[in-house]
Amino acid sequence: MEKLTNAGRRQMLISAGSIAAMAGLSGVARADLGTADAGAAKSSTAKPLPGYANWKDADSMIVHSANTIETRRTAFGNSVITPTDRLFVRNNVAPPTDASMMKEPDSWTLEVSGVAKPRSFTVAELKTLGLAAVPMVLQCSGNGRAWFPHKPSGTQWTVGAAGCVIFTGVPVKALLEAVGGMADGMVYMTSTGGEPIPQGLDPNLIRVERSVPISAVEDAILAWELNGQSLPLAHGGPLRIIVPGYTGVNSIKYIKHLAFTKEQSPAKIQQTSYRWTPVGEKPSPSQDSIWELPVKSWINFPSDPDQTVTAGRVQISGIAMGGMSAAKSIEVSVDGGKEWQKAEFVGPDLGKYAWREFVFSADLAAGTHELACRATNEAGDSQPEARRENNRGYINNSWRDHMVSVKVA
Amino acid sequence: MEKLTNAGRRQMLISAGSIAAMAGLSGVARADLGTADAGAAKSSTAKPLPGYANWKDADSMIVHSANTIETRRTAFGNSVITPTDRLFVRNNVAPPTDASMMKEPDSWTLEVSGVAKPRSFTVAELKTLGLAAVPMVLQCSGNGRAWFPHKPSGTQWTVGAAGCVIFTGVPVKALLEAVGGMADGMVYMTSTGGEPIPQGLDPNLIRVERSVPISAVEDAILAWELNGQSLPLAHGGPLRIIVPGYTGVNSIKYIKHLAFTKEQSPAKIQQTSYRWTPVGEKPSPSQDSIWELPVKSWINFPSDPDQTVTAGRVQISGIAMGGMSAAKSIEVSVDGGKEWQKAEFVGPDLGKYAWREFVFSADLAAGTHELACRATNEAGDSQPEARRENNRGYINNSWRDHMVSVKVA
Repeated sequence: MEKLTNAGRRQMLISAGSIAAMAGLSGVARADLGTADAGAAKSSTAKPLPGYANWKDADSMIVHSANTIETRRTAFGNSVITPTDRLFVRNNVAPPTDASMMKEPDSWTLEVSGVAKPRSFTVAELKTLGLAAVPMVLQCSGNGRAWFPHKPSGTQWTVGAAGCVIFTGVPVKALLEAVGGMADGMVYMTSTGGEPIPQGLDPNLIRVERSVPISAVEDAILAWELNGQSLPLAHGGPLRIIVPGYTGVNSIKYIKHLAFTKEQSPAKIQQTSYRWTPVGEKPSPSQDSIWELPVKSWINFPSDPDQTVTAGRVQISGIAMGGMSAAKSIEVSVDGGKEWQKAEFVGPDLGKYAWREFVFSADLAAGTHELACRATNEAGDSQPEARRENNRGYINNSWRDHMVSVKVA
Repeated sequence: MEKLTNAGRRQMLISAGSIAAMAGLSGVARADLGTADAGAAKSSTAKPLPGYANWKDADSMIVHSANTIETRRTAFGNSVITPTDRLFVRNNVAPPTDASMMKEPDSWTLEVSGVAKPRSFTVAELKTLGLAAVPMVLQCSGNGRAWFPHKPSGTQWTVGAAGCVIFTGVPVKALLEAVGGMADGMVYMTSTGGEPIPQGLDPNLIRVERSVPISAVEDAILAWELNGQSLPLAHGGPLRIIVPGYTGVNSIKYIKHLAFTKEQSPAKIQQTSYRWTPVGEKPSPSQDSIWELPVKSWINFPSDPDQTVTAGRVQISGIAMGGMSAAKSIEVSVDGGKEWQKAEFVGPDLGKYAWREFVFSADLAAGTHELACRATNEAGDSQPEARRENNRGYINNSWRDHMVSVKVA
């Protein structure tokens, strides 16, 4: 049981009969990405959207499986914010199927412990404690996995397991004020998801529970709204903890319990999943956990392999993010990374956790061009040419992997 | 003919048989707003969304007519950006019904004149000239009309003929570079919509054509994208000129012609509509045109007249905009405007043309409370207590009119 993969855990849940929404869809599907480009998948895979996410814009999405749905590279637009109906979905286990929880979201209950005065709060009560709206990149740990040469297991995301959105809720710091502050000696903030645990299984194998360093309290919020609408079930409604700057798995959906703890969670998803495990080695709690996002960027236009660009002046555009500090600058290369020129940020600066839109005006002659971009953040980190190899293919920010090849005529 | 109202012009178009989408809906409908509150209209009016806007979130909208659709006060959320499927719609005449224009939006053509080298551009060509993403309040000139005591003709908007969105396109300044700059002596930027003009009618009575002062060139863009998605027909796609800081009518939809001119447009919508006409008097070009938006704010939560708020600590929240300069501060009153306290801006600052979210924490005892808010902008203008009276009920920014009465128990 210790070596169960995410896929294995999900299959167990299926056999426990708890996932009505998955009917007709395989567990972890490997997308048939001939060129490892999102756009290319359009014709070769056409799985239906699962019920809980059937309101997504189907033309903008690549359905890898019922729990892994990617945004097409050509569907991001240039308006900074990713529309909710184009935002990726990634669940570690299937979402809860209790319809009542979304009918009366204000009744959802959160338990708070590891504080001076432990107690529980309804969402309605949380809404009286404070308000914050946080623009931020939500990005799956495995975004960019498709480019790892050793073919890690898991969804073969290219760029579309990410989006820049605005989550709205109450600051965790405001909640801490209401419970008299943290208990002494706490080192982690540990969040537990509300997914049901089937009887007879070891909860630590199933439970979606993640710990992050206590420093994350500074900017974390408990969110009930996404881009101006009530937080949908597919994105963790009625209540989700949002840990800006951290990979998506750390922002626990349907949060039922927020604990300030001395140790990291004993759940498998914390102990051995989401670790910087060397390729071919076994995961271990001694390896660093996948927490903070690094500096990263990619080009969205042009990126459609089916499209031929008209020769002449072309606006090359995309997004750049800084990770834990703001994106500071962005360079573009039109010759596969030999020469670089500074590109320009356009549109609003939504703060350090958001991404920036950038544009670069290039004169492209007929032929094929390799377009690349490379971001630098306020901390001085630049995007590396090579990915950091790791067994499960996490946190790929290699500029070379994210290059696009465009046909110009 | 000179005295035709907007309603009259629309009725003429209907009789000319050009508005398929209006089937089953009256022209300018007066919503049955018992309390002049958007929320109250829910049960009393239930018109269907017109075909071109049937993708709107019906529960969030009040359909006044096929061309006038308002966002409910309770549907704005607290995430700064208004989701496109909740954004109000207001057309002066019915949108074009040529389906091909939205199928191949890049082929839409814009004529440019009053410049050194007049020429036309396809949208595809415009996309090579530059890129800008502009967060801004889009607000109908008549938003707040419902509170004018003399009952002006036109849609009885309360707060929901407004939204804060991100338009993306090419700066008009970049376009001007491509055509060698403006011709000498031009004073206005005049935009013409692509609505078809029925045969036999005076085009100046029908044409949606507006002139704005040349200073608006500074921040204006020609937009093909709204909130990250291709600009829908309902909001002026394939191409709309966006004049940030100006009322919505000045941002011409389906723009076919952009002219730099010495005179204002001869169209009726410029000459006598949208003027600061004294109550009971005739409109005249000698009266000031309705152009710039003023400082304004309103409370969205709590604002539902059907909802009883729980006594105790309440987060009062809403939006504040500065008009032509940024919103600088915001005050809240819980006693109908007798005493005021400073409220706090939350969430990202998207620039001077966007609105800000604000929150104010109040302890409310059982009973009825009159909640008000009052914004001040960077130019030093504060929201007045009284509206500026005018015949057609434009530009209402009275803080008293926007008060909400809440029941607390």
